Amino acid sequence: MTIGSSSREEMLEIGRKARVAARKIALANPSLKQKALKAIAMHIRADAAHILAVNAEDLEAAKQKGLASSFIDRLALDEKRLEAVAVAVEDIAALPDPIGRITATFDRPNGLVIDRVMTPLGVIGVIFESRPNVTADAGALCLKAGNAAILRAGSDSFGTSAAIAAAMGKGLEEVGLPKEVIQLVPTKDRAAVGDMLSGLDGNIDVIIPRGGKSLVERVQKEARVPVFAHLEGLCHIFVHEQADLEMAKGIVLNAKLRRTGICGAVETLLVDRKVVSTHLPALVKLLLDNGCEVRGDAETQAVDARIIAATEEDWRTEYLDAIVSVKVVDGLEAAIAHIEGYGSHHTDAIITDDVTVANQFFAEVDSAIVLHNASTQFADGGEFGFGAEIGIATGRMHARGPVGVEQLTSFKYRVRGNGQTRP
Amino acid sequence: MTIGSSSREEMLEIGRKARVAARKIALANPSLKQKALKAIAMHIRADAAHILAVNAEDLEAAKQKGLASSFIDRLALDEKRLEAVAVAVEDIAALPDPIGRITATFDRPNGLVIDRVMTPLGVIGVIFESRPNVTADAGALCLKAGNAAILRAGSDSFGTSAAIAAAMGKGLEEVGLPKEVIQLVPTKDRAAVGDMLSGLDGNIDVIIPRGGKSLVERVQKEARVPVFAHLEGLCHIFVHEQADLEMAKGIVLNAKLRRTGICGAVETLLVDRKVVSTHLPALVKLLLDNGCEVRGDAETQAVDARIIAATEEDWRTEYLDAIVSVKVVDGLEAAIAHIEGYGSHHTDAIITDDVTVANQFFAEVDSAIVLHNASTQFADGGEFGFGAEIGIATGRMHARGPVGVEQLTSFKYRVRGNGQTRP
Repeated sequence: MTIGSSSREEMLEIGRKARVAARKIALANPSLKQKALKAIAMHIRADAAHILAVNAEDLEAAKQKGLASSFIDRLALDEKRLEAVAVAVEDIAALPDPIGRITATFDRPNGLVIDRVMTPLGVIGVIFESRPNVTADAGALCLKAGNAAILRAGSDSFGTSAAIAAAMGKGLEEVGLPKEVIQLVPTKDRAAVGDMLSGLDGNIDVIIPRGGKSLVERVQKEARVPVFAHLEGLCHIFVHEQADLEMAKGIVLNAKLRRTGICGAVETLLVDRKVVSTHLPALVKLLLDNGCEVRGDAETQAVDARIIAATEEDWRTEYLDAIVSVKVVDGLEAAIAHIEGYGSHHTDAIITDDVTVANQFFAEVDSAIVLHNASTQFADGGEFGFGAEIGIATGRMHARGPVGVEQLTSFKYRVRGNGQTRP
Repeated sequence: MTIGSSSREEMLEIGRKARVAARKIALANPSLKQKALKAIAMHIRADAAHILAVNAEDLEAAKQKGLASSFIDRLALDEKRLEAVAVAVEDIAALPDPIGRITATFDRPNGLVIDRVMTPLGVIGVIFESRPNVTADAGALCLKAGNAAILRAGSDSFGTSAAIAAAMGKGLEEVGLPKEVIQLVPTKDRAAVGDMLSGLDGNIDVIIPRGGKSLVERVQKEARVPVFAHLEGLCHIFVHEQADLEMAKGIVLNAKLRRTGICGAVETLLVDRKVVSTHLPALVKLLLDNGCEVRGDAETQAVDARIIAATEEDWRTEYLDAIVSVKVVDGLEAAIAHIEGYGSHHTDAIITDDVTVANQFFAEVDSAIVLHNASTQFADGGEFGFGAEIGIATGRMHARGPVGVEQLTSFKYRVRGNGQTRP
C-alpha cells in the first residue's frame, strides 16, 4: 500500500478489486466469516505495539496542527481502547449470520415455492472522520454481512487506520480470503472521496458517511449511489397532558444530558399547555440545575429567570451540547405539527399515560424511530439488539433507523419448481 | 389542468402538492383507501365514452404520425380493454393493505418493545410510455400503499391518460381525499421528465420508469433519486447434465415462445456439454420447428443446418423476439460464469434433477430471481402472488424482483416503554 496521491485510475482499480473480493466473501459460509473476524481481532492484538506507535505519530501531528482536544481524544488509542476495538470485532463475529436467511415464503397454487432470502449488498464505501476504531468496526460489520468494504479514513487518523487495516488484511489472508475484502483508500487526497461518491464505475453499491454534518451534507449532495445516513438528529420529546411527571423528569434528564453529543440526544422539549403549571417548572428547573442551558418561548421564560429567549433558529438547531429549546404547545396536534415542521425524522418521543394518544403520535410522526415513555437516547443499534451499528439512517429507502449487520444486506427470490410453465 | 408547456416552477408546485397529499393518504385507513379505489373504478366506467373518444383522437394522431402498428395497439382502448382497466383497479383495492403491518418485534431485556412497522414510501414518480392503462394501474398501486403519485404519460397517449386521470381524481374527491394523491403531469414537454428526475426539491422519493430500454437508460443515468427498474431482462436457462429432457423441452419452449416481448423471456440457452448428444438436438429442433431463430456456437450449429452462427454480441442481446442464442458449456461453473459475465441479474433458471447443483446455482447466480425447474416467464408480480406489479427491479437496494404494493413501502420503528432511560 503506497501512501500518497491516488489517481482516479488507482481508485477505479480499488473498485474492481472490491467487486472481485465481494464475490468471494458473498459465497463464504458463516463459519469462515467468523474465523476471519476472530483472526482479524487476533492480528489487531498482535500488532498492538505497531498500531499504538503509529497512533502516537498521528497524535503528535494533530497536536502540532493545533487540533481541538475533543478531536484529539477521538483520535487517541491506548492499550485499553485498542483491546476494546478487538473485542468489538469478536462481538460482531458472534452475531447471527443474516446471509441465506429466508424472510418470506410464498407457496403458489401451481406448486412453485418462492423463498425470499437475504444476500449481501455487494461493495460498501465507508467515509469517516478521524476515529480509527471505525476502521475495524465498519470493516467487520460489512464482512459479517458478506460485503466487501472500501474504507476512506480521515486524514489525521490515516496512519493509525492504515496500521489497523493492515492487521485486518493479515487476518483475512490467514483464513484464505482475499485481503481486498477490506480495503483502505491509500491516500489522504480529497479527490478520492469524490471518486468514491461517483460509485467507481458501478463498483460501490452504497456509501455510508460517518462523521459530522458537513461530511454528511457533502456525501448526500454529491453521491451518485445510495447513501445510508442522517444529516442531523433534531430529536423531540413531547410531554403530553397525561404524562406522569416523575417519569417525564427521568426521561427528559436522560435524553438531554446522559450524553449531549450523540444523535439521539433530545434538542427540543414540547410541553402541553394543559400542564404548564404542573410539569413545565419542574422540568426546566431540573435541566437548569443540572447545568443545561434552556432557551424557551415566552411562556417557558416566565417560569425561571435563567431561561434565555428562544429564536426561530433554535427550533431548527441540533445543539449536540448541554442546551435545550423548550416550547409550550396546544396538545398533540400542535406537537406533531412542530415535529413535522422542524424535525429531522430521526427520533422523537412522547410521554403520556394515554395509549390512544401515543398511537396517534406513532402514526403521524414520520420519523425513523418513534418512542413512547422512553428516552430518545435509545436510538442505537446496540440498544435495539442489533449488536453493533454502522450508523443511523433517516432516508426512507432500504435501511432506516439503526444500520446493523442485517441492514447491510439485499435479497433475492429463489423459485423451486418441478417443470412448471406459465399458462 | 392546462395542457401545454409546464415551467419548472409549475413542476415544483406539483411536487409540493404531492407531498401534502402524500401525508393525507399516508394516514388514510385501509377502508378509506379501498373506497377510493372502488370509486376510481366506478368513475373510469362512468367516463368510458369520453375516455374512448379522446383515445380515438390519440389513435388518429398516432396513425397520422405513421407510428408502428405495435405501438398503436398498445395505445388503443376499446370498451373491453377499459373495463379490464377498471377491474384491475378493483383487484388492487382487494389486496391486503400493507401499511401498519408489523414485520419484526424486538423484546428488549429492559422492557422496551420495539416494533418495525410498514409505512408508505411518500411520493412516487412514474414515467411511462404510451400505454394509457398504466395511468390507472400505477396510480392505484401507489395509492394502495399509501403513497402519492406523480405520473408522466407518453406524449402520444397524453389525451387518454389525462381523461383517465380526471376520472381517478373524481373518485378520490368523492371519498374526501385530495385529487392530488394522483397527479398527471399536465404537459408533453420533455423538460418535465428532467424536472422529475431531479426529485422536485425533495418531493419525489423514488422514480419508476415503465417503458423501453432508452427510457430506463435515461432515467438511471440522470435520476437524482432512487430508481426501481431493470434495464433489460437478459434471462438464461442452463440445462444441466441431470436435466430431465421432457421437462427441459416444456420449460424452454414456454420460456422462449409463450410471449417473446416480456422481460422474463429467455434469451440464452446454456447446455451442459455432457448432454450435447442427448438433449441439445431435441431442444434446438423444438425451437426451430416452432418458428424460433436459433443462433448457436460451433457445437450447436453442428446439430442443425438452420442454426445461424452466434457472435459475441448475441450473448449480450435481449432479443425480445422469437430468437434465441444457444451455447454449450462445461458444466455448472461455466454456466454460472457465463450468466454472471453476460446476464442482467434479472431472472435465470437451471433445469436439473440434482438438488445440490440447484442450490449451488441459487447461491452463486446473483440475480433478483433464480429458478429451479420452472419457466423464466414466471418473473411476474402476479405469478409471485403479489396481485399486481408496477415493474421488476434489478437493483440491490430496497425493492428487487417484482415491485408490487408491499414493495412500495418504507418502515419505521415504534418503541414502547414505561419510563426507561439509557444507562
